[in-house]
Amino acid sequence: MDRRSFLKSATLGAGAAGATTLAAPALAADTINWRMVTTWPKNFPGLGVGAQRLADRITRMSDGRLTIQVYSAGELVPALQSLDAVIDGSAEMCHSASYYWQNKSQALNFFTGVPFGMTHREISTWVNNLGGQAIWDEVYDQFGLQGFISGNTANQAGGWFREELTGLDSLKGLRFRTPGLGGKVWEKLGVTVTNIAGGEIFQALQSGALDAAEFVSPYNDLALGFYQVAKNLYISSFNEPGMATELVVDKAKFAALPADLQEIVKTACQAESDQMGNDFFANDPRALQTLVNDHGVQVREFPEEIKKAAAEAALEIHEEILNSSDPLTKKTAESFRDALRLVRTRTEGNEGSYIQTRKQYFQL
Amino acid sequence: MDRRSFLKSATLGAGAAGATTLAAPALAADTINWRMVTTWPKNFPGLGVGAQRLADRITRMSDGRLTIQVYSAGELVPALQSLDAVIDGSAEMCHSASYYWQNKSQALNFFTGVPFGMTHREISTWVNNLGGQAIWDEVYDQFGLQGFISGNTANQAGGWFREELTGLDSLKGLRFRTPGLGGKVWEKLGVTVTNIAGGEIFQALQSGALDAAEFVSPYNDLALGFYQVAKNLYISSFNEPGMATELVVDKAKFAALPADLQEIVKTACQAESDQMGNDFFANDPRALQTLVNDHGVQVREFPEEIKKAAAEAALEIHEEILNSSDPLTKKTAESFRDALRLVRTRTEGNEGSYIQTRKQYFQL
Repeated sequence: MDRRSFLKSATLGAGAAGATTLAAPALAADTINWRMVTTWPKNFPGLGVGAQRLADRITRMSDGRLTIQVYSAGELVPALQSLDAVIDGSAEMCHSASYYWQNKSQALNFFTGVPFGMTHREISTWVNNLGGQAIWDEVYDQFGLQGFISGNTANQAGGWFREELTGLDSLKGLRFRTPGLGGKVWEKLGVTVTNIAGGEIFQALQSGALDAAEFVSPYNDLALGFYQVAKNLYISSFNEPGMATELVVDKAKFAALPADLQEIVKTACQAESDQMGNDFFANDPRALQTLVNDHGVQVREFPEEIKKAAAEAALEIHEEILNSSDPLTKKTAESFRDALRLVRTRTEGNEGSYIQTRKQYFQL
Repeated sequence: MDRRSFLKSATLGAGAAGATTLAAPALAADTINWRMVTTWPKNFPGLGVGAQRLADRITRMSDGRLTIQVYSAGELVPALQSLDAVIDGSAEMCHSASYYWQNKSQALNFFTGVPFGMTHREISTWVNNLGGQAIWDEVYDQFGLQGFISGNTANQAGGWFREELTGLDSLKGLRFRTPGLGGKVWEKLGVTVTNIAGGEIFQALQSGALDAAEFVSPYNDLALGFYQVAKNLYISSFNEPGMATELVVDKAKFAALPADLQEIVKTACQAESDQMGNDFFANDPRALQTLVNDHGVQVREFPEEIKKAAAEAALEIHEEILNSSDPLTKKTAESFRDALRLVRTRTEGNEGSYIQTRKQYFQL
């Protein structure tokens, strides 16, 4: 999913009113007060919680010398103006997902996640060890910004469907809410893709305007009530195999921080890269148990012919981006491809084999 | 693998000599100087590198107010006296693996990893979100210590074998170097398990004293040259599906640190929990390419009947520990079991499905 229209809708009109209710942080002579705008509603499971915890870590580690005030979507600016708020100086940081800003550069898709792309571990490996950070820095440098991975949802769910999918034939004309590059994959399979606000999904499913919708994963989706109308939950998403969140900072202001505070910000982000993933691993299964046991949800796998066709469609999309006329987008796509070719051998050859072996033979 | 005898052997006699060659850190009035002993040789791939990077992060984030000096195995104390060094006050921290100290409590195995147990993501989720940290605190509190996850090798390799394994029959009397609980699993399958030092493995393989050996994974194993004698590398290990490293601190001294420094230590550990995993994901595949392309290594999967029998053997071992007469060991094993039952549904149902789908259908 992407949350852009959901958040835009959910936070309309909340801007000025929200901001005025926030207590002004205490100011000390040696205190730097920074504003972190986010694309998430306050305490949004996993994502909003992670943004707040990141801010708290930075504040605590610096003993308040760098005090971060978090503004949820709409409190200071609307969700999708978060990056621009850092560019224009109304905030110093934003906690978001890089692919929200693909209108600024298509390259930014890769630092969140792309169809049939990297898992959460693989994205972190690409960015931290295999050249991804340097290219990301180059992309954001155009806007006077710098980005760091600040979390990850891990693999998301594939979507909620009113009817069971029997194969490719069942996709023709299906009205499916699924945005971004993932939406383009489904379009190639004959699906009618729409991207309505997350807050409107339930009603659209109920009225029959939608046949299916995907958002995040059980931890987030349970509260939105999709299960009341669409009982078939398809696990797992091949379009969002690992959604990394980002912390974007004003590059010049960040460079002007004392070295210890710079290190604190970067290390806090990487700690959250671990912790947000844990939050989804701990809470998704509990939400899924509730969905299955209390609400009669059927957990299903996409039929093999759909997976196969989706992979072919995703390949076409990757190849288009690899041939991008924008040199930096092309460079990003190539770096991503090369890193994926390397790290997937570890994931598929070792982790994948173990997961399959344990699943098949070991019940404690 | 466990590295105990390897390290003991590799570092014999290095104690006093090593320590005297280290420059004394500069002392400032407000500087706290702490010694981090480790169970790893200096710059040991992944593990030793991770210990040094963790120390550097803490020193940099605190602007030197908490300056950490790393002592490799044998520099201050022999590897396997690292924990005792923290207990007796000759060091304030140790970077190691909890299962090295299973002679103090069998419960400590679980905070590193156990046969058919948790992956790196699952261990972090258990410790951080599902009660693992509180139980670990209780175990280490008996010794005046506190532990934090400080890294992870991710899934290790299954081992190097001179001859291809055709099934259970090929295990009878096979002389295999593989220590710890994993060794007990192989023993139940008829293998003659030995635990010689890592530094002696190559020679033992070459002389025919050993038929097989496991150590860590391609990133570590390449340098030891096992491929020259044993050409069959079995991926993946079902005995060490995720080996978490630890940072153990003197609990009272840690509690006496200012709150910002405590937060710095904890957050640095969690950042390294992400970064060490990245290091293995980036470097194992490259080492494996070298092994296959330059040294003719055959990468294989254990036969299904071996996997199945190993899972049954591991289950017996888990059940023995679940029935431990030590209440804290029993409590740890139960917490681990309950967390595993929950989080494995996410790993196997979502991540596992995606990894398999990508492997089967998508080649970029």
